[in-house]
Amino acid sequence: MNKPKILILGAGYGGIITATRLQKTLSANEAEITLVNKNSYHYQTTWLHENAAGTLHHDRTRIQIKDVINPNKVNFIQDTVVEIKHEEKKVVLEHGELEYDYLVLGLGFESETFGIKGLKEHAFSIASINQAREIKEHIEYTFSKYHTTPADKRDELLTIIVGGAGFTGIEFVGELGNRVPELCKEFDIDREKVRIICVEAAPMVLPGFDPELVEYAVSALEKKGVEFKIGTAIKECTEEGIVVAKGDDVEEIKAATVVWAAGVRGSALVEEAGFETMRGRLKVTEHMRVPGHDNVFIVGDSALIINEEINRPYPPTAQIAIQQGFNVAHNLAVLVRGKGELQEFKPDLKGVLCSLGHDDAIGVAFDKKLTGWSASFMKKMSDNRYLFILGGLGLVLKKGKFNIF
Amino acid sequence: MNKPKILILGAGYGGIITATRLQKTLSANEAEITLVNKNSYHYQTTWLHENAAGTLHHDRTRIQIKDVINPNKVNFIQDTVVEIKHEEKKVVLEHGELEYDYLVLGLGFESETFGIKGLKEHAFSIASINQAREIKEHIEYTFSKYHTTPADKRDELLTIIVGGAGFTGIEFVGELGNRVPELCKEFDIDREKVRIICVEAAPMVLPGFDPELVEYAVSALEKKGVEFKIGTAIKECTEEGIVVAKGDDVEEIKAATVVWAAGVRGSALVEEAGFETMRGRLKVTEHMRVPGHDNVFIVGDSALIINEEINRPYPPTAQIAIQQGFNVAHNLAVLVRGKGELQEFKPDLKGVLCSLGHDDAIGVAFDKKLTGWSASFMKKMSDNRYLFILGGLGLVLKKGKFNIF
Repeated sequence: MNKPKILILGAGYGGIITATRLQKTLSANEAEITLVNKNSYHYQTTWLHENAAGTLHHDRTRIQIKDVINPNKVNFIQDTVVEIKHEEKKVVLEHGELEYDYLVLGLGFESETFGIKGLKEHAFSIASINQAREIKEHIEYTFSKYHTTPADKRDELLTIIVGGAGFTGIEFVGELGNRVPELCKEFDIDREKVRIICVEAAPMVLPGFDPELVEYAVSALEKKGVEFKIGTAIKECTEEGIVVAKGDDVEEIKAATVVWAAGVRGSALVEEAGFETMRGRLKVTEHMRVPGHDNVFIVGDSALIINEEINRPYPPTAQIAIQQGFNVAHNLAVLVRGKGELQEFKPDLKGVLCSLGHDDAIGVAFDKKLTGWSASFMKKMSDNRYLFILGGLGLVLKKGKFNIF
Repeated sequence: MNKPKILILGAGYGGIITATRLQKTLSANEAEITLVNKNSYHYQTTWLHENAAGTLHHDRTRIQIKDVINPNKVNFIQDTVVEIKHEEKKVVLEHGELEYDYLVLGLGFESETFGIKGLKEHAFSIASINQAREIKEHIEYTFSKYHTTPADKRDELLTIIVGGAGFTGIEFVGELGNRVPELCKEFDIDREKVRIICVEAAPMVLPGFDPELVEYAVSALEKKGVEFKIGTAIKECTEEGIVVAKGDDVEEIKAATVVWAAGVRGSALVEEAGFETMRGRLKVTEHMRVPGHDNVFIVGDSALIINEEINRPYPPTAQIAIQQGFNVAHNLAVLVRGKGELQEFKPDLKGVLCSLGHDDAIGVAFDKKLTGWSASFMKKMSDNRYLFILGGLGLVLKKGKFNIF
């Protein structure tokens, strides 16, 4: 028997949804489906800022792949992708090689530092479970050193710089606003000594958001003790902190913790495969395929789709990646069976919600502007809805968010 | 009214017991009692290794002084002692100066590094709440870095060196033996990768202990994954680990965490006062006084008392410091009242118990050798007994150890 081989690289939002939808749609003798992922688990990238702040344990954010994948339908291989040889329809892994008929690339994002000196070496990035929990432990360790460090050198231990006032940066400082009072209690530190500084080169916070909501967010975060330095560029990151510039004013800020949350790009593996990309992102066809390579699909952060209303790319969000997973799974089933109709991918934006700590949020849902409790509630329900899609009610109950009061 | 001024420096075991006994014995118009301590809390030095390993929260180990001191009887001043001017009967604090008629020195211990190069700079010491929780956070941070560190540099992140196989060293590696499996689970680490190495220059573990009990301890700890390097001296401590020598064999061991648990000495303040000491310890009179200075008492780590049976000093233990507190409080009451009889201090060794993690211990109590559960139980009951003496049943219930099964 010669079943077509479907190979899915990466178990992020796009990859895991493609895999779980395919296992529902196709029977085991219609295709041989393989999912490759570096870790034994899938994780919710949009929750990592909570793990990094220490407000949510990382085990709540990750889901073991074996818990959502049916091994009779999908082979799971835990390994790291080294190279994509699309001419040969082969993928090289650290510990082996796989052949495919259809390939789904869901390799996620990397941090983009725009060449800012020292950022790669000295700043953290909220890009994986491993990195998020390292940030949490780093912050706790620096706070624990406060009382054993000479008085003239210890204040900087309590300064946390967040580079970027986009989605991740804002959600992260929101969580820090809740976490810092707990840290102060744990380590006998005066809250007034701690600084959370959000630095953004653009002239505004949360570009693209409704100005009224942005104003609400800034004011709410300032009440939680977050300082904003807007229109201020990070020029350099050193072992001791950062150098920023606003116009001609150059300032050094000493800080033990610098987290870069400003730039992402698609996985380097996609461009190394020889495909043409812009910062790792590739403009896909209406069926989420690489132009000229009808058997190669892309989902998630590496897929570039233009929003024609404003002639700009859609931001690479979880919401869109999930919808792409549905679309690609449908189209793969059509191709494998040789019947049915390919569907074009059209993002269906149901709203966008940005949390400001566990108890506050802003956003737009059902065409209504929301702030405070109602936005926070909607955000958590949307998180729970994803868990339901992925693993049913059991997963919602196990990993869902119910701290709604 | 000219009440005699009793000044107690330090709220360690000796100081806090002196203060609490005095407040029971003397009425407010018999003496003006002042207790000075650097922190707002007293802590149980003998529990710090648990805080350092991360098996017990530091709030369980400390007791707010306001919770055991009656402010109508004892003035508590939170400040740091800078200098003792015994000729002038004055003590200089960082933020003031105090006069006294009677002085009780309970200033505790300092780490003694015997001039080993790099130890002061690169090794931790389990000497205070601040240091213990820093060790805990340091270990967690190094473990959290494992998966974000290149493969050729990460194994040393999981190596913990403990210098010294005396009481503190052994109790600490015992706790680590329990803690490491939890850390491995938390950070997705293979237990086999973690090393806990106990290095001791002397030819044996727990000198002074019964050989049969020592054998039990070593075997129990080895089962928990502790490696022993006995008769092996630490020659140097660097940023990267330690250099050890056993005879002519010199070895470098890379380790992210080095904890020095081998040497203690009395507070430097006592010798800086001009008293004659041996490594900060002063041979006191039979009434716990500085020879030639009848109004100056010493309790705890700075008090040297010879055990005449073996012609060696008693080790500075909590048990002895507590008994000294009782003795000094009695004698001070006699002096203040000008009636009654001074009591000579005689240590009453009720036994000695060394824990090997929360679930195992060795020791001698009521002249019986104990191992395993019974020793561990006795150890916890002895800890609880101290809390009872200090703060009654309420304190036992709040901070006591009841994990006996």
